[in-house]
Formats: sequence, structure tokens, C-alpha cells
Amino acid sequence: MTKTQEPTITSVTDLATADARWVTLQKISYIDQTGTARTWEVASRKTRARSSGGVDAVAMGNVLLHPSRPPATLLVVQYRPPLDSYTVEWPAGLVDEGETAEEAAVREFREETGYECRVVSVSPVQAADPGMSNTTMRMAMVEVRLGEDDGNAILPEQRLQDGEHIQRVVVPLAELYDRLVEFSQRERTMVAAKLFHFAQGMQFARERGKEYGLL
Amino acid sequence: MTKTQEPTITSVTDLATADARWVTLQKISYIDQTGTARTWEVASRKTRARSSGGVDAVAMGNVLLHPSRPPATLLVVQYRPPLDSYTVEWPAGLVDEGETAEEAAVREFREETGYECRVVSVSPVQAADPGMSNTTMRMAMVEVRLGEDDGNAILPEQRLQDGEHIQRVVVPLAELYDRLVEFSQRERTMVAAKLFHFAQGMQFARERGKEYGLL
Repeated sequence: MTKTQEPTITSVTDLATADARWVTLQKISYIDQTGTARTWEVASRKTRARSSGGVDAVAMGNVLLHPSRPPATLLVVQYRPPLDSYTVEWPAGLVDEGETAEEAAVREFREETGYECRVVSVSPVQAADPGMSNTTMRMAMVEVRLGEDDGNAILPEQRLQDGEHIQRVVVPLAELYDRLVEFSQRERTMVAAKLFHFAQGMQFARERGKEYGLL
Repeated sequence: MTKTQEPTITSVTDLATADARWVTLQKISYIDQTGTARTWEVASRKTRARSSGGVDAVAMGNVLLHPSRPPATLLVVQYRPPLDSYTVEWPAGLVDEGETAEEAAVREFREETGYECRVVSVSPVQAADPGMSNTTMRMAMVEVRLGEDDGNAILPEQRLQDGEHIQRVVVPLAELYDRLVEFSQRERTMVAAKLFHFAQGMQFARERGKEYGLL
């Protein structure tokens, strides 16, 4: 990635629904539980693959296993125009036509991180932001077995699409929560809610697990 | 809640940006890291309070502490038109003008669950769905101390707004992950990604914590 400057927004304009290519607005009319007619406004992606079983995207919760270092996870940091911020996320991508979530996970993980991964499990379909959009995702837990020389210092080559500038950060799993809190305090930086919630759940079990009978 | 029928969608129509009241589409023009001019389409809420410090919503991760029952959490199940499904979520709501996230957490928790809660911690700002929208949220961890007679059988009165039909489900914390997987298998039911990720993180620590040096 040739990073020569900070990204800068030059204009934000209203976008007519008819002119939008990636997202759209729809008005849903429905009859609620009490028989009352109501409406709801929803933002949708226009990219959902017909073959996807109603899933837009897959995110890769990942564990990097190194012969002599503690288990770690790879995060991606990228400039996200909607927030005018760098976001910290797990690698993720849209499921392409004809792909399973598992196939998309392996492909996107390779593209964004350069690593070949093994899919350990795939979650049920989850609603990304159910009050506002119909966007859905699955979370694939994946594992990468590193060689002695792989790791933080030597990262494999990414296969990014035009316009993608994705920085990779390897964080020991045991430090994940604290590192995300630190990232949140940086200027122009925000952690994605799904990753943060996973880390919060992990930390909750670590801190309160005994008291709450979870361990 | 008078539930007399299943909600039914009667129509879905394109919504012109100019006619939308709650959400809108915008086109962002920006210069990326390499100096290239690019555009990005974003869906935004029109409701963000000016006083909120850039936060749309707050969600309440909650622990119900009962004198003789295991620690539990209260989930809300509601019909979400964007997904034409019942979603399982933690209670959440938009931050009103002039409110802190902490105040919104206490108010919304009272409205949706009927319980008075104590805020234990409030997370940094998180990006709800950073590829598609500028929506942000904070997660408040809250605690409710129940009396001997409170609990699953006797739930306090909700203070719902017109059109809100919210069912409450109390789940022991130790069963949270398994119960969310079960919910996901039900017809017309989907778990919200943030809640699911928290539960996945908690379960990850329980199942792999020793192996990965987290405990």
C-alpha cells in the first residue's frame, strides 16, 4: 500500500435512490401484531447474491497459531468513508454469486490478509443492524497455522482490489480487548461493533466467569 | 402486548431520498490515500441528536442478579420489518437530544424491560456496520438486582411507545450462546450480530480459554 496522504472528504451530497448503485432505500408497509397498518424505512444493499440464501457478507474471526508465540488474531484497519475514520475490524467481505459463506471466507481472507485459512465453524445468519437495514452476515471462525518465520514481522502479500488499502495488525488474543479500547482512543479511529462485542464477551468471561458460574 | 396475528408485509416500494424521514442516502466524494478521487454510497440515520457526540444508539448488555437463581440476561424479541423476522437483541435505543449514553441506557432499559438498572460501564463508540452506514453505538453493561420474587415468572410492566411490541426473554448467562443458536434455528427468527458476537466471544473464552492462555 502506497500511503502518501490522509484520506479527505471533498463533498457529501444527497443521493437520489434512483442514482444509487450499491445501496437503496425502501419503504415497507406492513400490518403489525395488533392489525394496525404501519410503515418502516429500510436501507438495503443492492449486491446480495441470489444464491446466498439471504446472506450479504461473511466476517472472519481468526486465530493465528504460531509454534512459539501466543495465539493471536489478525485485524484489518482501513479508511471507511461513511465514518470518515479508520475502522478496526476482522477481515470480511460480500458473498459472491455461487459461493457458500465458507468459500467466501477463505477467498476474502486470502485477499485481505494473504493467508490461507481453515474454516473451523460458520455461525447462523445474523442481522447486522436490524433497526435500520436488512443487511445480514455469518461469522466464520478460521484458523491459520503459521511457520516459525511467519508473523508480525513478515506478512504475506495481499491480493487487494483496486481502491482497497487495508493495513493488517496482529494482536495476541489475550490482549484483544485492551488493544481495541486503545484503538478507540486514537484520533479518527473506530472499532467495528461486531469485533468489539466479541472481545467484550471474551473479556466478560475472563473477568466475571468464575463469579457468574461460566467457567 | 395484545398479539392477535403474525405481522405481514403488504408492500415494499422504492423510497425517494427526498421522501424519507428516518434514513437517507448520501454520496461521499473523497481523495484516498494514494491521491485518487473516489466515491462511496452511505446510508445514514436522520435522527442523530446534535448533543450526542456522534453516537446514534446505546445497547444494554445486562446481567440480572437473583438471590437464588443463576445470573441471567434479558433479551428482547421483536418483529423487525427490514428483515421480515423476529429479531433477538439486547435492549437498545436511540440517544435523545440532551441525553448522555448512560442516561439513555437507563431510560431505554426501563421502557423496554420495566426494570431499573445500574450502569456498570459504557464502551467507547463502535461502528455498527461500517461498510454501509455511518451508524454508531455504545454498549452499556448494566446490572439489575432482583428480589426473591422477581424473575422469569413475574416481569415488571413495560412502558412501550406506540407501535412497539417487545417480548422479553430471560436466559441464564451460562446458556446464552446455546439459546441464541436455538433461536437462529426457529422460523422467521434472527439474532442480532452484536449480541451474537458477544455470546460467541464468551463461549470462545469458555471453550478455548485454557488452550489459548486466556484464563
